[in-house]
Amino acid sequence: MNRFDHRKYRPFPPIRKADRRWPDRVIEQAPLWCSVDLRDGNQALIEPMNVVQKRRMFEQLVKLGFKEIEVGFPAASQPDFDFVRTLIEENLIPDDVCIQVLTQAREELIRRTFESLRGVRRAVVHVYNSTSTVQREQVFGLDRDGIKAIAVRGAEIVKREAQKYPQTDWTFQYSPESFTGTELDYAVEVCDAVTAVWQPTPDNKAIINLPATVEMATPNVFADQIEWVCDHIARREALIISVHTHNDRGCGVAAAELAVMAGADRVEGTLLGNGERTGNMDIVTMALNLYSQGIDPRLDLSNMDEIVECVKACTQLPVHPRHPYAGELVFTAFSGSHQDAIRKCLARRQDSDPWQVAYLPIDPEDLGRDYQAVIRINSQSGKGGVAYVLEREYGIQMPRWLQIEFSALVQRATEASAGELNGEQIRRIFDEHYLKTSANCRIRDYQLRRDNGQDRLSAEVDWFGETLSVAGCGTGVVGAFVDALNQQLAQPLVLVEYSEHAFGDDHGAGAEAIAYVQASVGGSRFSGVAVSEDIVTASLNAILDALDRAREDASASAA
Amino acid sequence: MNRFDHRKYRPFPPIRKADRRWPDRVIEQAPLWCSVDLRDGNQALIEPMNVVQKRRMFEQLVKLGFKEIEVGFPAASQPDFDFVRTLIEENLIPDDVCIQVLTQAREELIRRTFESLRGVRRAVVHVYNSTSTVQREQVFGLDRDGIKAIAVRGAEIVKREAQKYPQTDWTFQYSPESFTGTELDYAVEVCDAVTAVWQPTPDNKAIINLPATVEMATPNVFADQIEWVCDHIARREALIISVHTHNDRGCGVAAAELAVMAGADRVEGTLLGNGERTGNMDIVTMALNLYSQGIDPRLDLSNMDEIVECVKACTQLPVHPRHPYAGELVFTAFSGSHQDAIRKCLARRQDSDPWQVAYLPIDPEDLGRDYQAVIRINSQSGKGGVAYVLEREYGIQMPRWLQIEFSALVQRATEASAGELNGEQIRRIFDEHYLKTSANCRIRDYQLRRDNGQDRLSAEVDWFGETLSVAGCGTGVVGAFVDALNQQLAQPLVLVEYSEHAFGDDHGAGAEAIAYVQASVGGSRFSGVAVSEDIVTASLNAILDALDRAREDASASAA
Repeated sequence: MNRFDHRKYRPFPPIRKADRRWPDRVIEQAPLWCSVDLRDGNQALIEPMNVVQKRRMFEQLVKLGFKEIEVGFPAASQPDFDFVRTLIEENLIPDDVCIQVLTQAREELIRRTFESLRGVRRAVVHVYNSTSTVQREQVFGLDRDGIKAIAVRGAEIVKREAQKYPQTDWTFQYSPESFTGTELDYAVEVCDAVTAVWQPTPDNKAIINLPATVEMATPNVFADQIEWVCDHIARREALIISVHTHNDRGCGVAAAELAVMAGADRVEGTLLGNGERTGNMDIVTMALNLYSQGIDPRLDLSNMDEIVECVKACTQLPVHPRHPYAGELVFTAFSGSHQDAIRKCLARRQDSDPWQVAYLPIDPEDLGRDYQAVIRINSQSGKGGVAYVLEREYGIQMPRWLQIEFSALVQRATEASAGELNGEQIRRIFDEHYLKTSANCRIRDYQLRRDNGQDRLSAEVDWFGETLSVAGCGTGVVGAFVDALNQQLAQPLVLVEYSEHAFGDDHGAGAEAIAYVQASVGGSRFSGVAVSEDIVTASLNAILDALDRAREDASASAA
Repeated sequence: MNRFDHRKYRPFPPIRKADRRWPDRVIEQAPLWCSVDLRDGNQALIEPMNVVQKRRMFEQLVKLGFKEIEVGFPAASQPDFDFVRTLIEENLIPDDVCIQVLTQAREELIRRTFESLRGVRRAVVHVYNSTSTVQREQVFGLDRDGIKAIAVRGAEIVKREAQKYPQTDWTFQYSPESFTGTELDYAVEVCDAVTAVWQPTPDNKAIINLPATVEMATPNVFADQIEWVCDHIARREALIISVHTHNDRGCGVAAAELAVMAGADRVEGTLLGNGERTGNMDIVTMALNLYSQGIDPRLDLSNMDEIVECVKACTQLPVHPRHPYAGELVFTAFSGSHQDAIRKCLARRQDSDPWQVAYLPIDPEDLGRDYQAVIRINSQSGKGGVAYVLEREYGIQMPRWLQIEFSALVQRATEASAGELNGEQIRRIFDEHYLKTSANCRIRDYQLRRDNGQDRLSAEVDWFGETLSVAGCGTGVVGAFVDALNQQLAQPLVLVEYSEHAFGDDHGAGAEAIAYVQASVGGSRFSGVAVSEDIVTASLNAILDALDRAREDASASAA
């Protein structure tokens, strides 16, 4: 009784196509993007975003250039309803941005959805019902006609409710949910019945969104499905065909790309792929895939640190170190032959040349990142790495990003000394570079108050000869301190990395903490390290240490 | 001067094909798999695997059913050389497993490579050189003929050296490295020149491996490239065509799948996608994609916890919570409508039915996982989640996996009380479930010694009425304790999750630590929680708490 038995599964039936054209197509312009971070993304979080996080995400999406943003499912969730009201009543939606809300095709939900949108200038009302065979037979117990009737009735109610709010410019969107598990002819039949109600025109299009609610086959099959629908659907010229892929088979981006080749006009997804189960397709990856082919992605993704920081803060989920374009290791070369090739390509490169650098499909600087070569101090020993030595001999557990930076420092020293360094020598480099930095800025006294999950900090800081009083608030003392500093600094400070651990021989009462931060100051990254008996002091001093380094760097550039 | 400017990049030229067949193909059997975890994967780690980690990875790969395993680059790395010798001299390679080693096409490196393999029963010698335009022009400064001569000379040396070791059954493999950036006719010209030297036959095939060293275009383009090569290469019937994709555009799995449709016989990759930059293609995902289509993946992936644990321990990299099939959130449903549909499908399902469950493309139990429904105690408040309440009111920062488990407990209590629970009631459920579990097993005294990065622990444990003396070693006290327990337990104990934080109002001298573990015992997962003034005691008791729960569960099943 082996529970691991493939015979339990049936293959996905292929789409027989005699007239397939998409494999000859090349994407030549970015699709319309629609972010679903605040709906599909948010709905899949253990702890859904609070209002502060939702506003931060919305502002980030607007800043990146999204023109369509699905902001919630207001009829199913009071917080979503309230957030839609906030956006409208506080006038937070820029003129060129259209919000979108999701609703099931049920009368009371549709009515409530329109209520949430009262007074909005324009909006997309996105109505859906499930159409797959599994959902029809096992979940709803209805036949094809019964399920189609739900869609048509929903479309009618949407149309009727919209007429009650004539001051708003409405766009209607319909999704046959679980499209990938739906017979193609039936999916088209349902969509046609919906648009027969809406009667969209080329000047007033409706959106038909085809979700890979669950990714069920190789991505070429999804492209076949999309091409088939585009060929057979009624009123094609009056429709925007949208896709919404998930990543169950790890091919969500591929499926969206091939679907655009197959005729889709619009792509729904999230920043870095948050969403139910394996997540939605990642718009950042797809947009940068287009960018790296010389296509305007119609999103400004130049501040990758800020995007990563926002996604992490709002979703409480990590970003994998190998995540395309965004991960901390994706612009790092470990192999000597890779490093050699990159060095040669960069050395020959003129600024006016097209980008052609071995092993770097994109220029890291475009995203505010640096190329990093990791050089091992002693490649022969196999466990002689800098980090290993410092941890074993001194208990210093450098985070990965600092290991990379520090290995380059050690490498320079190795070259100067023309030999290998021992642990003591490596420790000396660490101390000199990170722990003996000037006392130009240091935390003095501080007061901290935590109330309702928010921390308020006021502090006195030794600041290049002055004493500065700062105050700020945020989640956690570190967040509050960053807020306080941002009120003083000319350039925005973003905390990219932070970690801390007990340190030193004595882990008891006399233990010290060592804190490591990486801060982005005006778009460049700086490290900070500090030691203290107090974990708070260590953390705040590490941030100040990074600022000190940023100031040093600025004076060096000016000099 | 906007640094974010797509005009710096040129599009990848499409492959014009009039005779494209792959989009009509469906994968009907698993390709030959070759793991490159110990070479391409290992080379991309900040801290490469030590010998203990390499052996663990090798044993894991063998256990999963890999028959070809690339174990290193012995001519470039003494640790790799030593590891190959260990495998051979200690007879660690099963009869049905063939090891593979990589070498550049240079005489001294090839000679050294064969030395490392002396005495092996059979092996693949994998020789490569870079062939792309960028590498030819910018890195090597050679024309087409010059680069081809390197390949041919390498092939000749490989053939000559192999003849010196006639007792070994050799297979030769050639990679035109940076194949995706190489003109197709030239790639075929070089491969043909190599196989003209080797003269493979259908009974003694050579492997031609076509790497997407950097992923440079949509995955259909890679499939076109592979189909073109398969159509034009000489001696096709005497070749195994292999692909080795990377994930720079997030489509490494898609590219490998479409390449197999296009004629590739063999796929190189790593477990969960470790490798340079964005990583290699993930064999676990591709194999389970096949599995979920009713195809025998020819790998046994039924113990996903063990795979994840091994990868994390050997690479020191995390596995993302949304990683297909492997992430901690991929079998979790948050949406009420998803939960409802899953419940209905599972209720109707007979064991003999093919698997057809909405929102679950695969049965989690096949991988030793459970389906989890996350129910929020108060979906209206938006921040009323259980975890939020416990953290805000009591400083208990449950890790995500525990939040999921605990939310189900709270939900049951909510249903029983037919109303919402307040913080105090939630805390009581937490204490009763996690902290008041019987004192059946508890750590008493222990001795710990750390030497050269290895910890040795001996401890006395109160064990269901007895006192047990245990001893073990590992990296860190927790690893040593797990080792010690595994010497006593009938079923293997694997630590899946572990975290700990300071706890209670007083963060000073009187602070307590709370430790959370999730342990897999005989393939099922159990949680353990413990509080102590000593961080070590808290950790070890949490492990024992999980074992206590496992024993309870076993008695309940038996009863």
